Amino acid sequence: MNRIGIIGVSGYTGAELTRLLANHDQVELTVATSRQYAGMKLSDIYPNLRGRVDLVCEDISGDELIDKADLFFTAVPHKTAMNIVPALLEAGKKVIDLSADYRIRDLATYEEWYQPHSSPEYIKQAVYGLPELYREQIKTTRLTANTGCFPVTAILGLKPLLDKKLIALDRVIIDSKSGTSGAGRSANVATLFCEVYDGFRAYKVGGVHRHTPEIEQELSALAEDLVTVTFTPHLLPINRGILSTIYVEPLTPCTQEELQALYEETYAGEPFVRICPPGAVPSLQHIKGSNYCDISIVVEKRTRRLIILSAIDNIGKGASGQAIQNMNLMLGLDETAGLMNIPCFP
Amino acid sequence: MNRIGIIGVSGYTGAELTRLLANHDQVELTVATSRQYAGMKLSDIYPNLRGRVDLVCEDISGDELIDKADLFFTAVPHKTAMNIVPALLEAGKKVIDLSADYRIRDLATYEEWYQPHSSPEYIKQAVYGLPELYREQIKTTRLTANTGCFPVTAILGLKPLLDKKLIALDRVIIDSKSGTSGAGRSANVATLFCEVYDGFRAYKVGGVHRHTPEIEQELSALAEDLVTVTFTPHLLPINRGILSTIYVEPLTPCTQEELQALYEETYAGEPFVRICPPGAVPSLQHIKGSNYCDISIVVEKRTRRLIILSAIDNIGKGASGQAIQNMNLMLGLDETAGLMNIPCFP
Amino acid sequence: MNRIGIIGVSGYTGAELTRLLANHDQVELTVATSRQYAGMKLSDIYPNLRGRVDLVCEDISGDELIDKADLFFTAVPHKTAMNIVPALLEAGKKVIDLSADYRIRDLATYEEWYQPHSSPEYIKQAVYGLPELYREQIKTTRLTANTGCFPVTAILGLKPLLDKKLIALDRVIIDSKSGTSGAGRSANVATLFCEVYDGFRAYKVGGVHRHTPEIEQELSALAEDLVTVTFTPHLLPINRGILSTIYVEPLTPCTQEELQALYEETYAGEPFVRICPPGAVPSLQHIKGSNYCDISIVVEKRTRRLIILSAIDNIGKGASGQAIQNMNLMLGLDETAGLMNIPCFP
Amino acid sequence: MNRIGIIGVSGYTGAELTRLLANHDQVELTVATSRQYAGMKLSDIYPNLRGRVDLVCEDISGDELIDKADLFFTAVPHKTAMNIVPALLEAGKKVIDLSADYRIRDLATYEEWYQPHSSPEYIKQAVYGLPELYREQIKTTRLTANTGCFPVTAILGLKPLLDKKLIALDRVIIDSKSGTSGAGRSANVATLFCEVYDGFRAYKVGGVHRHTPEIEQELSALAEDLVTVTFTPHLLPINRGILSTIYVEPLTPCTQEELQALYEETYAGEPFVRICPPGAVPSLQHIKGSNYCDISIVVEKRTRRLIILSAIDNIGKGASGQAIQNMNLMLGLDETAGLMNIPCFP
Repeated sequence: MNRIGIIGVSGYTGAELTRLLANHDQVELTVATSRQYAGMKLSDIYPNLRGRVDLVCEDISGDELIDKADLFFTAVPHKTAMNIVPALLEAGKKVIDLSADYRIRDLATYEEWYQPHSSPEYIKQAVYGLPELYREQIKTTRLTANTGCFPVTAILGLKPLLDKKLIALDRVIIDSKSGTSGAGRSANVATLFCEVYDGFRAYKVGGVHRHTPEIEQELSALAEDLVTVTFTPHLLPINRGILSTIYVEPLTPCTQEELQALYEETYAGEPFVRICPPGAVPSLQHIKGSNYCDISIVVEKRTRRLIILSAIDNIGKGASGQAIQNMNLMLGLDETAGLMNIPCFP
Repeated sequence: MNRIGIIGVSGYTGAELTRLLANHDQVELTVATSRQYAGMKLSDIYPNLRGRVDLVCEDISGDELIDKADLFFTAVPHKTAMNIVPALLEAGKKVIDLSADYRIRDLATYEEWYQPHSSPEYIKQAVYGLPELYREQIKTTRLTANTGCFPVTAILGLKPLLDKKLIALDRVIIDSKSGTSGAGRSANVATLFCEVYDGFRAYKVGGVHRHTPEIEQELSALAEDLVTVTFTPHLLPINRGILSTIYVEPLTPCTQEELQALYEETYAGEPFVRICPPGAVPSLQHIKGSNYCDISIVVEKRTRRLIILSAIDNIGKGASGQAIQNMNLMLGLDETAGLMNIPCFP
Repeated sequence: MNRIGIIGVSGYTGAELTRLLANHDQVELTVATSRQYAGMKLSDIYPNLRGRVDLVCEDISGDELIDKADLFFTAVPHKTAMNIVPALLEAGKKVIDLSADYRIRDLATYEEWYQPHSSPEYIKQAVYGLPELYREQIKTTRLTANTGCFPVTAILGLKPLLDKKLIALDRVIIDSKSGTSGAGRSANVATLFCEVYDGFRAYKVGGVHRHTPEIEQELSALAEDLVTVTFTPHLLPINRGILSTIYVEPLTPCTQEELQALYEETYAGEPFVRICPPGAVPSLQHIKGSNYCDISIVVEKRTRRLIILSAIDNIGKGASGQAIQNMNLMLGLDETAGLMNIPCFP
Repeated sequence: MNRIGIIGVSGYTGAELTRLLANHDQVELTVATSRQYAGMKLSDIYPNLRGRVDLVCEDISGDELIDKADLFFTAVPHKTAMNIVPALLEAGKKVIDLSADYRIRDLATYEEWYQPHSSPEYIKQAVYGLPELYREQIKTTRLTANTGCFPVTAILGLKPLLDKKLIALDRVIIDSKSGTSGAGRSANVATLFCEVYDGFRAYKVGGVHRHTPEIEQELSALAEDLVTVTFTPHLLPINRGILSTIYVEPLTPCTQEELQALYEETYAGEPFVRICPPGAVPSLQHIKGSNYCDISIVVEKRTRRLIILSAIDNIGKGASGQAIQNMNLMLGLDETAGLMNIPCFP
């Protein structure tokens, strides 16, 4: 049985990792750390786990921690992660980092959008944790940089068009709407119930959200050329889910049928990407709690513009579900193990 | 492989049965009927099922239908069920009826609260589908009358006290709050989004909700004496979940510790009843999408009154989850098969 | 006292008109028609009005109806309106039509997007009911075509840029998100609580929503040249409010300061347009229940693209509030009368 | 013009006071204090006020503060209030205290449920701020102790029955459900959006909520005898509103008609209490944003028990609306001034 550790278990991504691991029969969660909740049972912090998870949170580090597992999820903020990951790798452990610290391959770009990096030498070893793009590399790496949530919708939504070089690379507009769990579990007036419920607003308008360089990095890699995007996130008054509405300009006119076929082909073998049939569009109600990414492509006849709709659960395929998928690949397990729960509706 | 049929698949309970069956590896859903959606793929009606369920809804009946499965769920309204179930039983099939038609053992009571019964001879053969009370009978019956949603919270919440004859039988007050999915999927102004969102109201106030006689029947059976209740349902602006707050008068003073121990003992072996630890209370966020019933018992020191809090997912343990649990018992399978998904939070 | 009639009072816009009129001290609601609720008190249909509005719904028409008021709101669906409005005008009444029937000035365009028009001769007489564009004409017209809800956000959001000819006219992308009250009060599975709550989805993707030609008509009028737009509506799981995120390409680079000043100047005298201060963006929580349109303009430095955020209450400035503002103008009253309630937060 | 001050303006009750005062034409808000937001415009903290309120928050105290207004609202936590109110009174100002510090007339009871009191000599001077019970005293007092939110629903709901001595005084059960704004605007994990949305739970179960002695004090005063209650609050996933479902035992059987008449008579002259017509029940959707208390009384025929439903907006009639009503009385203004906005629906 593979022994798994979670560093920083008390946030929503840590809780979701725990939930998914508890339904996974080939791995065992052997250690979970939390400074704030040390000594408390995980099932007292997250009572949905009651009767199913017995683990107690620990506030340990160093060898005491490292010896307890073979693969670690680091579910801590960026900047914290870069100080924890190197020791794990040096001890021969596998690591899936859910922070942003190893996602950006260009150090200068990272440091421009985040802050100075304390372990840049590991950036090169990291594989960007999106199996639909880097499956083979993930299987053999020791360090996976789990993706940001918004980038998943953009990258999977645009991959077929970029692969085929069908669109203008400087005219990509990504209008994204995210549930509030993406803001994490810290006490904060801006994400109090009454500040979000029955409302809706944009935030970080004007291309200043830190997922922008991550999106551009991966879109450029697919395009084999520089892609710049306008990316505007919005806050939805729901718990989970991201829907991105993406507007692009085709270089030559495409038909609805051609693009539908292209998207279906591109993702034919992918267990977690579902292309909506013609006429249907993704809904956040249909992916909640799962690892699916649902995608539609629509040709606007009047303007010839293309509109891509791409939906995930931000804690699922946007964070912890994705991380479990990466874990399965890194451990040589069935890629879908523990991830086949069907979304709940309503 | 056990062949399973769902008659009336298009409502929320039908959809949830389908979801749960798709995650169950010892049974196969072989037929699902819907007049309204005949010819449509289930996954087009409920796109959460996309990629996982291929079945097409059929509008068939009689032998054509009966031959396609060995056990049927009837997920149709009361009055409709009583006209469908007899033929299934006569053909030797097992039936789990999700309507109210076979729940009330006293025909006169049924006819007072509902309408004349067309197949009263089958009422006696039916077992009330609450495994925590009737597990052995369910294992051998051919007809299980799946419980109402509200009654589950009341019956499981009060069973330990009634078993021990600790409370006054004419002073039970059940204040219940239910999510809107309990109202079903029919087009109806009263359950439009804008009529429910950001609101809260009681309904059927004054002991007129049809679950009242069902609750009293089962509480009286446990008490071995007549129990009358005041039961007031309320409509919560959420999708799933029932929380009942139950007020009772102890015949002699009890301590918090005694009652906590009593509840833990009573449900010690039950896979789907979780007694909250002292100081914790159930929350609908922690049972959503699951088959759990979470219960707390609190002694109010000032008045000596007892307060029981009892929470389920109305589509889970209150309907389709319960039905799958009954199916497992009737087919001799592991009682928890297909039901061990952990509730999603947040 | 001006006598006011509402034809088709039972929908959400009729209810809101009633609420606003009851708080208006220079007009009196003297008649309200509803086929479905004839004979019922308005305050029994909409109990928020209890104690404040005594009117009973009537199912009357012809002279009996026409004699009862001097100005009528027609709050009925398009196609129904065109058959009611002519008789009112011919009897010398003033009319504010909340349907789409007199909004589109080009008959062929109307008939392409809607259906044949039975009273096209009145289209020319109608004034498009947006006071910020057509205040003087509204003061003297007898027929005001109240605006669609989405167009208000687009037109007010883009007016300053189009007035000054600052942007490319074929590259306007309008990504709009609307609360569910916009779908009206008809029984409909798609807008049941459980089909909307905790979800989010786009609809009428690909430029097929009927507000598209209305938006293009008014933007083109402002630009004095043809404007084509990509317009994608989405359904928010809230009751009220539209936020449009609008992406445009400046013809020459603009600074944030210039544009902030331009927007503030353009709307300096407008009582219901509020330009957010630099750094702030509109939130649907802050305009709910009011007649305000809150707007932000942001320059994206990396791409030079401009992003406009524009928010209204779809039943307020998007329908009934706007209609009252138009009524005030048509009756020579203070334009803000009855509309100065401050939005409720939280 | 009466000069009004708000001490502690930054919470939700302060914001609502500001909104209501801005719609009131006989008073002027001249000073508003906030330590946290000193120097900020109120309309930047609460952008719903933009364009309507120009005041800047100040962090002042002592004479500098006292000189700026004639009547003060103290919208600060209990324990803080008792240290601020005496100086205001001694300077000859009128005070409406929104904390609990002067509500409990028995000092020992106050100190048992809260903490030691630093200005007990003022408790006797305070009038409990519920106009329906103490209108005449409020008109002449200099210190009004504004009510708790839950108590309003209980007291107004039971007054007619207690006035007539119709019910058993030791068998009152109050099951209350409150929107989340009652928890205030402090950063707190328990009231984050994701911890409340799509959920429901009880809290302070077992008679330990601090509104219990306040409820019992006022019910006992009405009954002229000791009343004890079981009071259980629950947290609703909505912003505003409290619905209490109250269960009582009549001393002799009453008919529905008698009780309906009794309630209508009792509140016949009250501007803010609305008795629902027979068959209708209160809904939180219909009182939101207003100063109304909607009440129903229902006789349960089977058990003869009475069920009272009582609904308010917790920030309206449960806090700031009530406070404005009290201010109007204390200043000799029309009691309804500034409070006649009709609730918004949907």
